[in-house]
Amino acid sequence: MSDLPRRVVIQEEGPREGFQIEKGPVATADKVRFIEALAETGVSKIDCVSFVNPKRVPGMADAAEVAAAIHKKSGVTYSGLWLNTSGLERALRTQLDILGAIRVTASESFSVANTGMGDAETHAEQRNWLTRYRDEGIVTKWGYVMTAFGCNYEGDIPVARVVGKVAEIMDLATEFDVDLDSVFLADTVGFASPAAVVRVVDAVRSRWPDLRLGMHLHDTRGLAVANAHAGLMLGVDRFDSTCAGLGGCPFAGHEGAAGNICTEELVFLCDELGIQTGIDLEAMIECAEMAEAIVGHQLPGKLTRGGTTAAARRRASAA
Amino acid sequence: MSDLPRRVVIQEEGPREGFQIEKGPVATADKVRFIEALAETGVSKIDCVSFVNPKRVPGMADAAEVAAAIHKKSGVTYSGLWLNTSGLERALRTQLDILGAIRVTASESFSVANTGMGDAETHAEQRNWLTRYRDEGIVTKWGYVMTAFGCNYEGDIPVARVVGKVAEIMDLATEFDVDLDSVFLADTVGFASPAAVVRVVDAVRSRWPDLRLGMHLHDTRGLAVANAHAGLMLGVDRFDSTCAGLGGCPFAGHEGAAGNICTEELVFLCDELGIQTGIDLEAMIECAEMAEAIVGHQLPGKLTRGGTTAAARRRASAA
Repeated sequence: MSDLPRRVVIQEEGPREGFQIEKGPVATADKVRFIEALAETGVSKIDCVSFVNPKRVPGMADAAEVAAAIHKKSGVTYSGLWLNTSGLERALRTQLDILGAIRVTASESFSVANTGMGDAETHAEQRNWLTRYRDEGIVTKWGYVMTAFGCNYEGDIPVARVVGKVAEIMDLATEFDVDLDSVFLADTVGFASPAAVVRVVDAVRSRWPDLRLGMHLHDTRGLAVANAHAGLMLGVDRFDSTCAGLGGCPFAGHEGAAGNICTEELVFLCDELGIQTGIDLEAMIECAEMAEAIVGHQLPGKLTRGGTTAAARRRASAA
Repeated sequence: MSDLPRRVVIQEEGPREGFQIEKGPVATADKVRFIEALAETGVSKIDCVSFVNPKRVPGMADAAEVAAAIHKKSGVTYSGLWLNTSGLERALRTQLDILGAIRVTASESFSVANTGMGDAETHAEQRNWLTRYRDEGIVTKWGYVMTAFGCNYEGDIPVARVVGKVAEIMDLATEFDVDLDSVFLADTVGFASPAAVVRVVDAVRSRWPDLRLGMHLHDTRGLAVANAHAGLMLGVDRFDSTCAGLGGCPFAGHEGAAGNICTEELVFLCDELGIQTGIDLEAMIECAEMAEAIVGHQLPGKLTRGGTTAAARRRASAA
């Protein structure tokens, strides 16, 4: 485990990934309360809302109201998601931190199913976004390769194709003079295994040895924590995750869907491996309890019931 | 990942670990139907029932009836659990495969809380059991070190103490001329992390390089799959697990409790790593669906909803 990073950055996506898929309406005030509690855990970035069509995603109809109500804490980045220019324009009218990303998809079949666009159209779209971001003075911080570990339409994705997609991101960054913080390899549909993580990360690393890598993992098939550990062992030091494992929500009967890797389990893993996250695990577990109370049903994260080993160690020392 | 075993033995504990903790009564016929379905998956050993006091564990009152009703499949071991001599006598009157184990606990505080016996009394008790097994002609196959990775009473357990407990098992085995298949390091309360797995397994390995090691993992804090992967990377090739993650059952409101590592997630992990298990993953997922139907609520295993990547690969190849 010699390549473990000393410190990782964990980006919280629970409010956006989670509340857009919940069946029950989630009150605007509850969303704000949850985001503000997350900010107190030490997390450095919170993805708050999606500026998407309220007819298609009713749970995000109050995105602007949520964004307006948050009392922002200094040092925390509050981001949002948009998928078209009207979404970006809505986002720009809020106090959220507007940051760009270059998003490409390794599986063209998935891309077509998900966005209606193949490789060429996606590439043109990214150039349009980068042009717009440049014109607006928006900083572009991340690259994302979706379905980097396989997908349900194409099965395994050749590693060379993933490397090609990272190259596409790097070329776009160069063309638009963008200094990326990192490139995220996203397991969009929960297809990854630790073996696939090693194959893909090793291949990307050998071409871009100095590039910071992130992973965006879903727990569709139960391996998210093992995949994160495999990434950590290779020095991956950026992760997206959701408090309580929000999103997709297997516990609300969304057949086949599943949330992101659970933030508090990822923080717990890092704590036990001696990797700094800057996040207070007990505070994050309290947020997970709040999330369960807000959505009104149990969520996948286990530490809300299991408690931390740190608490057990403290009790043992005191006894 | 160079020390991955080529093949692992996965022992199914769902019927015993799971049905003893369920609140609702589980019909005897359902238990039998589940055990028989598990036997068709290719699993080599199924822990079926506990011969314990029906007043304390009402869910196991029908243990003898379950054992009597099973149509045993050739090549499958059907085991049971007993905690005292009357339990063993009940077990011996059934058609189950009666196999002994040497069970010691690394945390003396946990041992006292769990069994009322400290180290010395536990040692004496194991000698009594081994004497009885020798007299009855019962084969003793496994050693177990409970709380090998820490416990809620004592926190971290010094590695030297775990090594000492393995030595105690090895000495008892020598004294009673027992040829153990393997020694299991049990994470009884879900305290382990991949770092703890490395520390403990490395220490035990360095003293007994040829000893086969097993792991019995609980998913109390969400790291069971990562811990299993850490064990696999060190060549651990015996695992206990429960179909659907039965047992402890966080989804029935048993605060703080959690089931074992989920069999189908462990099989899926092995499949993706190219490790043979002899278990048909699709058949095991069907058993997990049966388990959910029997207990009447969702269980932790995610593949019942996520499906396998193998199925996705087949569909992709056919398309």
